[in-house]
Amino acid sequence: MAVITIVGSGMMGSALAFPAAENGHTVRLTGSPLDRDIIETCRKTGRHPKLERDFPAGVSYYQTEETAEALAGADLVIGGVSSFGVDWFGQEILPLIAEGTPVLTVTKGLMDRPDGSLVPYPYLWQKRLDELGKKLPLCAVGGPCTSYELVAHDQTEVAFCGKDPAALGFAKQLMQTDYYHISLTPDVVGIESAVALKNGYALGIALTIGMNKRAFGPDSPLHFNSQAAVFGQASKEMNRLLKMQGAEDPRSLWVGLGDLYVTVYGGRTRLAGILLGEGKTPEEVKTELKGVTLESLVVAERVARAVRVKAARGEADLADFPLLMRVDDIVSGKMPAELPWEAFTYDGRG
Amino acid sequence: MAVITIVGSGMMGSALAFPAAENGHTVRLTGSPLDRDIIETCRKTGRHPKLERDFPAGVSYYQTEETAEALAGADLVIGGVSSFGVDWFGQEILPLIAEGTPVLTVTKGLMDRPDGSLVPYPYLWQKRLDELGKKLPLCAVGGPCTSYELVAHDQTEVAFCGKDPAALGFAKQLMQTDYYHISLTPDVVGIESAVALKNGYALGIALTIGMNKRAFGPDSPLHFNSQAAVFGQASKEMNRLLKMQGAEDPRSLWVGLGDLYVTVYGGRTRLAGILLGEGKTPEEVKTELKGVTLESLVVAERVARAVRVKAARGEADLADFPLLMRVDDIVSGKMPAELPWEAFTYDGRG
Repeated sequence: MAVITIVGSGMMGSALAFPAAENGHTVRLTGSPLDRDIIETCRKTGRHPKLERDFPAGVSYYQTEETAEALAGADLVIGGVSSFGVDWFGQEILPLIAEGTPVLTVTKGLMDRPDGSLVPYPYLWQKRLDELGKKLPLCAVGGPCTSYELVAHDQTEVAFCGKDPAALGFAKQLMQTDYYHISLTPDVVGIESAVALKNGYALGIALTIGMNKRAFGPDSPLHFNSQAAVFGQASKEMNRLLKMQGAEDPRSLWVGLGDLYVTVYGGRTRLAGILLGEGKTPEEVKTELKGVTLESLVVAERVARAVRVKAARGEADLADFPLLMRVDDIVSGKMPAELPWEAFTYDGRG
Repeated sequence: MAVITIVGSGMMGSALAFPAAENGHTVRLTGSPLDRDIIETCRKTGRHPKLERDFPAGVSYYQTEETAEALAGADLVIGGVSSFGVDWFGQEILPLIAEGTPVLTVTKGLMDRPDGSLVPYPYLWQKRLDELGKKLPLCAVGGPCTSYELVAHDQTEVAFCGKDPAALGFAKQLMQTDYYHISLTPDVVGIESAVALKNGYALGIALTIGMNKRAFGPDSPLHFNSQAAVFGQASKEMNRLLKMQGAEDPRSLWVGLGDLYVTVYGGRTRLAGILLGEGKTPEEVKTELKGVTLESLVVAERVARAVRVKAARGEADLADFPLLMRVDDIVSGKMPAELPWEAFTYDGRG
């Protein structure tokens, strides 16, 4: 049996303790500096404060100052930070991990560079490792997986991506269960881009729910024609963006579309989209969400900015991304929450 | 202003009377032999018995024996029959339509042939026209559109497909509104296959809802991880099937995925999937649905049969379609409602 150390005790990192420990492995769940109360609660109750089930046997809890101890002898390190912890993970945690230890990260997101390219987080961390002169096989998780449903043993399909085939196989062997099913692929840029891109597009689909409440009254039933219209357009634009990003395997799109589907149905991205669709300003939405900065908003802004840069350089056509552009304009407060429905049509006649 | 005759007064055919009449056209809604009560109700109340809004001004109603009168002088004929009316429409209605009149059909489905090919309905009707020595430009509608939401003016995106660019443009011009948005494409086989294929796959997604009720209790919240897992696999398999069918335009897939999305959320396909997932036998489901033969079940069976024929001829690999094969086995009662989750994973390592 292996030792698996999870760094960052947010919901998704903590949820991965379930398949890991149920497989009989020793799991060390380690908080970030922001997770002190969570770790304290886990120690007292055996349960994460936001999850609805006790941790299985075999999970122990470490505060951030005990990270080195938690990492000692780890066979696999899981990076469980949110996108706002990317720098911290690179600066503080990577140097502590023993040479050669496989690292599996759940952090979803992209950074945009001045030339309009979008960089998945594993590439940022790889750069940091190169600076440190250190070799850790980096793998990342993508795909439709909400933490509370994973904890409930809902059937779940994800993809592990990375450039080291042995590390991928090792991570799958440790983590797979009869409810957690894992594809393996070297297409890091495809998987990471797909699962990041879906954030902005999920917001776009949720927008229609709010727009319909505005148009038809707050108790109007959900309107699936318009949700589906945006879903179809989102698929089209995500496919174009993956090609632009240089995705290596077309199957990564299907992982991203599953992730898009699941993201529409839960959490803060949906809520933010509905509120914006109802006509609230981005500032009002941020207030209502208690000042939490949404990863989905950040990703939508970054991707849209990158596409605009590419368009200015003649490397992209903004007319190919009417949904992304409009979501960005709505999120940034430049335009009201209306969608350019006719721009989603195409004329394929000769 | 034009005269638009709709033949078949089911929900979708009748719903198209709304954009048509709101655009100022004269609309003649004509019943099939099975629609006598519907037409009677429409005449008495000005409303379709299953739609929640009165017809706009400009719609009049014809019983089936008045079809010739309804078709006289029509600028556009809309075929509004279900897949169970395909033969009737070909045998009885096509001969009555004046030479050269564009025909737009809403009927979704495919017929399988002994060689494993799948034929969209417009090709069956074209064959009938060739036999009659008659020229009618055939167009068809695909895409995510439920009738009751169209009637409610929910924003809706569809595609009109056909081989006559002028007829497509004419139909769009008559039908488009500020809530009904229309793409145009010559890819008949792509659009018609995509929107037919989604039926079996929507059933597969709905299965997970019933399976989760069985596993976690009837009041368990919806599980979106497993729905999304099946959605991703469905996208992958639909893409493969469209390529196998010889779809001409990759954009037809996005129309089909939007249609898949909307189909999961409504109607009898969802209900049938949930009941099967809960563990009911196909016979019990048919009884519970009052003996109605579901188009989704028929399509799933036909497509699976076609793929099996192709596999036997060495032209397809059944391992590429684990979801379709299992849905077919469940629908036909050969296997219990369990999904082969691990078969949905892939290993893309070199």
